[in-house]
Amino acid sequence: MANSLYDFGMIGLGVMGRNLLLNVADHGFSVIGFDKDSEKTQATEQAATPGTTVKGVNELSEMVKSLKSPRKLMMLVPAGKPVDDVIESLIPLLEPGDVIMDGGNTHYTDTLRRANALKEQGIHFIGVGISGGEHGARTGPSIMPGGDKEAYAHLKPILESIAAKVGDSPCVAYLGKGGAGHFVKMVHNGIEYGIMELISEAYALMKYGAKLDNDQLHDIFARWNKEQPSFLLEITKDIFLQPDDKTGNRLLDMIDDRAGAKGTGKWTSQDALDLPVPVTVIDAAVAARNISSLQEERLDASKIYPVVPTNIPGDIDTFVSEVWDALQFATIMSYAQGLAMLQTASKELAMDIDMPEVVRVWRGGCIIRSTLLEDFFKAFTANPALVNILLDEGMASIVKTKVDGTRSVIAYAALNGIASPGFLAALSYFDAFRSARMSTNMVQAQRDYFGAHTYKRIDMPGTFHTEWQSH
Amino acid sequence: MANSLYDFGMIGLGVMGRNLLLNVADHGFSVIGFDKDSEKTQATEQAATPGTTVKGVNELSEMVKSLKSPRKLMMLVPAGKPVDDVIESLIPLLEPGDVIMDGGNTHYTDTLRRANALKEQGIHFIGVGISGGEHGARTGPSIMPGGDKEAYAHLKPILESIAAKVGDSPCVAYLGKGGAGHFVKMVHNGIEYGIMELISEAYALMKYGAKLDNDQLHDIFARWNKEQPSFLLEITKDIFLQPDDKTGNRLLDMIDDRAGAKGTGKWTSQDALDLPVPVTVIDAAVAARNISSLQEERLDASKIYPVVPTNIPGDIDTFVSEVWDALQFATIMSYAQGLAMLQTASKELAMDIDMPEVVRVWRGGCIIRSTLLEDFFKAFTANPALVNILLDEGMASIVKTKVDGTRSVIAYAALNGIASPGFLAALSYFDAFRSARMSTNMVQAQRDYFGAHTYKRIDMPGTFHTEWQSH
Repeated sequence: MANSLYDFGMIGLGVMGRNLLLNVADHGFSVIGFDKDSEKTQATEQAATPGTTVKGVNELSEMVKSLKSPRKLMMLVPAGKPVDDVIESLIPLLEPGDVIMDGGNTHYTDTLRRANALKEQGIHFIGVGISGGEHGARTGPSIMPGGDKEAYAHLKPILESIAAKVGDSPCVAYLGKGGAGHFVKMVHNGIEYGIMELISEAYALMKYGAKLDNDQLHDIFARWNKEQPSFLLEITKDIFLQPDDKTGNRLLDMIDDRAGAKGTGKWTSQDALDLPVPVTVIDAAVAARNISSLQEERLDASKIYPVVPTNIPGDIDTFVSEVWDALQFATIMSYAQGLAMLQTASKELAMDIDMPEVVRVWRGGCIIRSTLLEDFFKAFTANPALVNILLDEGMASIVKTKVDGTRSVIAYAALNGIASPGFLAALSYFDAFRSARMSTNMVQAQRDYFGAHTYKRIDMPGTFHTEWQSH
Repeated sequence: MANSLYDFGMIGLGVMGRNLLLNVADHGFSVIGFDKDSEKTQATEQAATPGTTVKGVNELSEMVKSLKSPRKLMMLVPAGKPVDDVIESLIPLLEPGDVIMDGGNTHYTDTLRRANALKEQGIHFIGVGISGGEHGARTGPSIMPGGDKEAYAHLKPILESIAAKVGDSPCVAYLGKGGAGHFVKMVHNGIEYGIMELISEAYALMKYGAKLDNDQLHDIFARWNKEQPSFLLEITKDIFLQPDDKTGNRLLDMIDDRAGAKGTGKWTSQDALDLPVPVTVIDAAVAARNISSLQEERLDASKIYPVVPTNIPGDIDTFVSEVWDALQFATIMSYAQGLAMLQTASKELAMDIDMPEVVRVWRGGCIIRSTLLEDFFKAFTANPALVNILLDEGMASIVKTKVDGTRSVIAYAALNGIASPGFLAALSYFDAFRSARMSTNMVQAQRDYFGAHTYKRIDMPGTFHTEWQSH
C-alpha cells in the first residue's frame, strides 16, 4: 500500500489550485487534489502532463487517507470562512506532525490565529503567499512561506522544485515567523497596486497629453521593458496590441474603467496605518480604484466641470523620456514604501522578516518581478536592517537621475488636468522624506493651541504647553 | 431630599470633562462630577461660576445616588478599556431608563456594541461627539449625538443649552442611528487633519518658496480669515505672532516638526477604505504626520538628496493669492471627501445620518467651523441626498474659480521640491472625480491578463475574459 500514497495534496482545484498542483506533479511528486466539484477534479486529471501522477477526488477524507505521513497539503480556497470550514473538516482526519498550507490571500492575523489553534493539536499550519497569476502557478510562481520553521523544512524540497528560478536560485524561502508569509504577500500586492496605477497614469499622460496611439504606446513600453525588464511592463506592451474581436478596435479602448479589487491593497493601506508606516503610493492606488468605481458621479461631475484644454508637449521625445523617469521614480517609491512597511512590521509585529530573502524571492515568478529587485537585493544583502531603500547609496544614485523628469511631468499633469494621483503621491513622499524639517511644526502648534496636546522643541528636551494668545 | 438631587453628572474631570460640566452648570442645571482624583474634584468646584451648583465627589456610587431619575450622565474618559470599566462599575448602580453618554473619541463600533449590551438592561447608551477643544467645552462646543432617538429627547434641553450657537440655532442635533454620533465626530476629525495639513503646506510654500517671515504670514492669514472666517485660520494667524519666552524667537520656529495623533484621523482613513469611499486628502494628512515622525530617517535622507534650489516667485502677491486659491480649493476637497464618506456610511452602515443637520451643527463651536459650512448647509438643505458637494452647482461655481491658482501652485511645489502632499492629493482627487473616463481600464486589462479577473466593456453589458496574447 505504502507506494500508492501521494506526496502532496491540494484542497480546492480552481485555476490556481489546479495549476499549482500540476506544477508539483511536473516536478516528479505524486499528487492528489480534492474538490467537491467533479468537473474540477476531472479537468485537473485531464490537464496533467503525461507520465505524471495526478489524482482527483471528491471526498476530503479519501484525499487525506491517501497522503504519505507527515501529510503535506495545501488549500487554495477563498480567504475567510471557507478556510476555517476546511480546517474544521480536516482536524478529525489529520495526525500530529501533518502540515497544512494556506496558499490563498489570507489576512496574516487569521493565519496567526489558525496556526496557534492547530499547534495545540500538533498540526503545523503555514501561511504561504503565492504570486504569479494562473500561468505562474503552473510554470513557476514566487512563493512566500512563513510561520513554523521546522515545518517548513518538510515543505522545502517541494516548494523549491516548483518555484520560479532566477539562475539556480529558487524564488522561495522561509521569510519569517507567525503570519510573515501572508504579510509579505499582502505587501507584495500593495506594491503591485501601486505599480499598476503608475503604469495607467503613464498611459494617460502619453495618450491624453501627447496624443500617442496604441501602436506608439506599445513601442514605448516595449522599449522601456528592454531597458528595465519587469512583468508588468511586459504585459502592458502586449495589452496595447490586443485586438477586440467584437469591434475591430483595440480591446483596451473598449474596457470599462471601473477597476475591481480583492482586498489585499486595502489591507496594506489599513495595516500600514496601524504600524504606522507611510505607504502613500499604495494608498493613492487603492483610492484611484475606488474613485474609478464612482462612475456615475464622475459622469455627472464631468458635465459640471469643464474639460481642461491640453497643451501637447512641444518635444514629444523629451516628454516621453520624462514620463519614463517619473514611472521609474514612482515605482521605486512604491517598492520603498512596501519594503519599509515590511522592515517595520518585522520588528513591531515580531515576525523577524528576512529582508534579503524577500527581495530575492521577488526577483522571479511574481507579478512585481523586475530587474530593480536585483538592486534591492544588493542593498539588503549589504544591510539587512536597511529601514528604507532610499537611504541606500546605490538606490539614491538611481533615484537622483529620475527626479528632474518626474518634477517636470507632475507640473505638466497638474497644469493640464490629467489625474496622476500615484505620481503626485510618490513625489510628495520623496520631498517630505528628504526634508530635515517639515512644516508639521504648524500642526503641532495648532494641536497645542486648541487641545493642549503639548509639543516638543528643537533646542531642548521635554514636553511643553503654551497658553497661546489671540491677536 | 428630592430637591437636593442633581440634574446632570459627569464621570472623568480631566480638562474636557470639567469644562463641559461647568458649562452645564453655567446654564442653570445643578451638576455633580466624579473623579477618583480629589485634586480634580476640588479644581472643578473651585472653577465653578459663583451662584452655580457644582459638586465634586470621589465615589461613583455617591454620584449616581445623587442624580435625578431618569439619570443623565456623561463620561469623558480615554477611549477603549476605560469606557468599558466605567460601564461595568455603573451597571449595578443604574436603573432602567437612565441615560449614559460617552463624550469621548470612541470608535463607533465600540459604541454600537455597548449600546446593544446596555439596551438589554433598559439603559440608554448614547455616543456623543464633542468638538471645540478645552475652551469650546466651557463656552459652547459643537455636539454630535447619535443612537437612541427617544433617549436623546431627555438630553436635548441640556445639550441645546450648552452647545455653541449660530444666531439662535444651537450646534447640536440628533444626527443618526447606532454609532452615528461618534462616526460623525470621527469624520469631523479626519477633515480637521486634512485642513491642518493644508494650512501647514500653505505656510511652507510661502515661507520656503516666497521667503515670507512670520509677521508677513500673520498678516496674510489674518486677511484670509477675514475673507473666509474659520477657526483654524484664526488660530493660525495667532500662532505666527506667539513669542517664545525661552529664546525671544517666535515659538513656531522652535517647535519640533514631529506631529502627534490620537487615532481619529487614522480611523477615518481605515474606515473609508472599508466602505469604500476615497478620502485622499485625509489619507495624505495622516501619512504626513507619520512621515514627520520618521525624523531620523529624514535627517539621513536630507544628507543624501541635495536641496532643490528654490525659484522665488516673481510676483509674490500673485503667488500668495494662488496659494490662497489652493488652500480654499483643497479645503473644500477635504470637506467633500468627509461629507461623501458620511453620506455613504449613512446607507451602508444603516445610520440614517441627517446630512443637513451635520453641517448645521458644524457651523459653530467645532474645530472645523468655517463660513464654508453655510454653503454646505444650503447645498444639503436643498438636497439631503447629495452624494458629493462637488456636484452642487453653488459649490461648483466656487470651486471653478480656485482651480487655476491651485494648478499653478502645485506645479510650483513640484518643481521646487516643497512637499505638499495634501494639495497634490486634493487636485488628483478633483481631476479623477471630474473624469468621465479614467485610465483604470489599463488596470482592468492587467488584472484580466495575469489573473483572469474579468472586465466589463463600455459598449455592452456582461463580464468578459480574454486570452491575452504576448507580442
